[in-house]
Amino acid sequence: MTSTANKSGAWILTVGDELLRGEIVDSNKSFFSERLLRLDVECTRHITVADDADAISEVLREAASRARVVVISGGLGPTRDDITTRVAAKTFGRTLVRDEEVLEGIRAFFLRFGREMAANNAKQADFPEAAEILPNPLGTAPGFVIEVEGTWLFFTPGVPRELYRMVDEEILPRLQSRFSRTAVVRAALLRTFGMGESTLDRELSDLAQDDSSITLGFRTQFPDNLVRVVVRAENEDDAKEKLQRVVGQIHERLGPMVLSEDERPMEAVVGELLAEQNLTVALAESCTGGLLSHRLTEVPGSSRYLIQSIVAYADEAKIRELGVDPALLKAEGAVSAPVALAMAEGVRQRSGADFGISTTGIAGPGGGTDEKPVGTVFVALSTATKSDVRKYELRFDRVRNKELTTQLALDFIRRTILGMELPSEDLLRPTGKRGGAH
Amino acid sequence: MTSTANKSGAWILTVGDELLRGEIVDSNKSFFSERLLRLDVECTRHITVADDADAISEVLREAASRARVVVISGGLGPTRDDITTRVAAKTFGRTLVRDEEVLEGIRAFFLRFGREMAANNAKQADFPEAAEILPNPLGTAPGFVIEVEGTWLFFTPGVPRELYRMVDEEILPRLQSRFSRTAVVRAALLRTFGMGESTLDRELSDLAQDDSSITLGFRTQFPDNLVRVVVRAENEDDAKEKLQRVVGQIHERLGPMVLSEDERPMEAVVGELLAEQNLTVALAESCTGGLLSHRLTEVPGSSRYLIQSIVAYADEAKIRELGVDPALLKAEGAVSAPVALAMAEGVRQRSGADFGISTTGIAGPGGGTDEKPVGTVFVALSTATKSDVRKYELRFDRVRNKELTTQLALDFIRRTILGMELPSEDLLRPTGKRGGAH
Repeated sequence: MTSTANKSGAWILTVGDELLRGEIVDSNKSFFSERLLRLDVECTRHITVADDADAISEVLREAASRARVVVISGGLGPTRDDITTRVAAKTFGRTLVRDEEVLEGIRAFFLRFGREMAANNAKQADFPEAAEILPNPLGTAPGFVIEVEGTWLFFTPGVPRELYRMVDEEILPRLQSRFSRTAVVRAALLRTFGMGESTLDRELSDLAQDDSSITLGFRTQFPDNLVRVVVRAENEDDAKEKLQRVVGQIHERLGPMVLSEDERPMEAVVGELLAEQNLTVALAESCTGGLLSHRLTEVPGSSRYLIQSIVAYADEAKIRELGVDPALLKAEGAVSAPVALAMAEGVRQRSGADFGISTTGIAGPGGGTDEKPVGTVFVALSTATKSDVRKYELRFDRVRNKELTTQLALDFIRRTILGMELPSEDLLRPTGKRGGAH
Repeated sequence: MTSTANKSGAWILTVGDELLRGEIVDSNKSFFSERLLRLDVECTRHITVADDADAISEVLREAASRARVVVISGGLGPTRDDITTRVAAKTFGRTLVRDEEVLEGIRAFFLRFGREMAANNAKQADFPEAAEILPNPLGTAPGFVIEVEGTWLFFTPGVPRELYRMVDEEILPRLQSRFSRTAVVRAALLRTFGMGESTLDRELSDLAQDDSSITLGFRTQFPDNLVRVVVRAENEDDAKEKLQRVVGQIHERLGPMVLSEDERPMEAVVGELLAEQNLTVALAESCTGGLLSHRLTEVPGSSRYLIQSIVAYADEAKIRELGVDPALLKAEGAVSAPVALAMAEGVRQRSGADFGISTTGIAGPGGGTDEKPVGTVFVALSTATKSDVRKYELRFDRVRNKELTTQLALDFIRRTILGMELPSEDLLRPTGKRGGAH
């Protein structure tokens, strides 16, 4: 085997005209990167080329001479455009060999759907000599791996669900057994709500300051912020202990702002709390227009706790369906604390739910006034023993104002169940920091 | 100027560790590609590198020697990681020159928010000598363009909304005036619903078969499919005429399956029809859980036609809020044609809306039976003069089953207003074709 001393990291190549035309966003590359990082294999370059033999050959040669691991995706399909396998064989001076077992598998795949295999599918059973075949239980195109001067090149299909499975079941285990790592890496991802990215950074950055084996990363997933903790240690036990310690410190500092440690979104966290405590909820939505209800029902099993939602967009619907007093509406306006309270109480009483939640506000772009500008939003929560309402002045566009309002409503439920204070509105203000809008 | 004979197309480089770690999906590249294509400039390579001087320098040099246009995004910010400008200057042997006018602009930017400019922001006013500065009205980092051996290199910020504007206002006009194109290119994008991607391909592909100046492209945006028509001609008039002819042919063949010619989604098309005809609508949602209402209210001004939506998740809510007969629910089950009809009629009568629409079904993953498997869905529409219901057997996951059901409900309204037949369910079946799931 040739020395690999001058090679490092992983290169990820994707092949396809459609990627270069900008018709689709290439999410496979970020998937690969994230998975490789779990093995402490750093990805050093992403390259996309067209379905063009010269271009593919050029980057394959360059990647094989520079990286220790190369992952190539796309171009393994049955059509004329799919030339990756042929080009790889030619580039590295290997002949193509047909694998009869794979061919049989492709035939059987089509038969299961009552169809004959088309002639052009046969080439999906061709592989460069000395390739190791990587099964693809979800499609007709298997992947393969070849070794070139000490570098492993993994060829995978371009269809995301096929390649995701192939990476997890075939590629990562092979890489794990090959790279005898000197360090054990463990990571955690905490989802938070109620504090901007730059504030989070300021509050937490000292946790990693004097210890290069701890890395903190921040990422916005509107309206939440994710905190990624990566620790390195010499062995499994130390890594676990260190990760636990840092995660514990973050919990101490952020308190109720931490939603989950496993990326579960707010609606899943709230749904779980409601189900655990055997509580039910009913919604009265105005400015959120059904989104609050939609989010809660995205969670399988939500019929256990969601009784109903009334989207009372028109004033007459607020009166008829929620029992809001017409005089109150006239005196205070639909976007007001008393109407928000009346909506929450109305839907709770009608439905018999434990919690009634309401939203009313001006999502924009139109409808704002000097007194109640676009972004003015009220969220109220009513239980059998008390009712409470909060006013927010949001500063985003229509879509984000709606999204943030549903998050505030869900957080109202969450914090009420957990017996926690509501967050200060100040923390929700947008900051000028870059990078959050990708 | 050096000859550019051996150079072709555009390369797009993005810079940033976060892109290589897979923490965010890099959507800037597909934006650049799509915009360049409008000028008939073909993008031939996408490359992403880390915030590393050697790596950036290497790809800059390679790109400048191979492409006619290079667009670089990222690394123009104020932090230590932001080294693109400095590296570019060094790579091409230029000194850095501070632009006092830009510096003043950055200071003023911060003053508008009542803040002092931090010292590290000053470097955003440094540019390689002979660079032309590209204004950034949305942020502190201007872009710039330099010419290297006949190749233009455009440096842009990484924040999407800043760079989108810079591309449209600064970069595209410069490219347009530079490349004296021999052909005029015009494109249209049609949004369709009701036919799979491969069926569309089969129905339409002959339109471009004998004419290499016409290209058809297909792309899935679940549950819709987009058809892209690109035509080339010698002059503006011919291009327009040709585009119109092909778009007309597509309309003839697809009829009501074409939703819009400007990418407007179904909810906007339906909203416009309702507003135009002064019609109102009320919704009774079960399996769609508020998503139907949410989609309609995503359209600004939807309060003109949406009166209310009742998300009646529990049986008791269907009885109480929609007046569904308990005996009917017991005899037929909540997921049945008679209950769907009763829901649509109930919400229409209560609200006084012109249309009542209902959805009821089993979105999954649980809740299916032999008789009513997961994906069984009923959609009903009721007007003052008639009621109608459709049954569908959808075969996706929970999220997509909900999404597709809302699309079917909206299409029910659209086709009813337009006096069109409903589509055959067969056409909605998923196909095995690759590429749709990116």
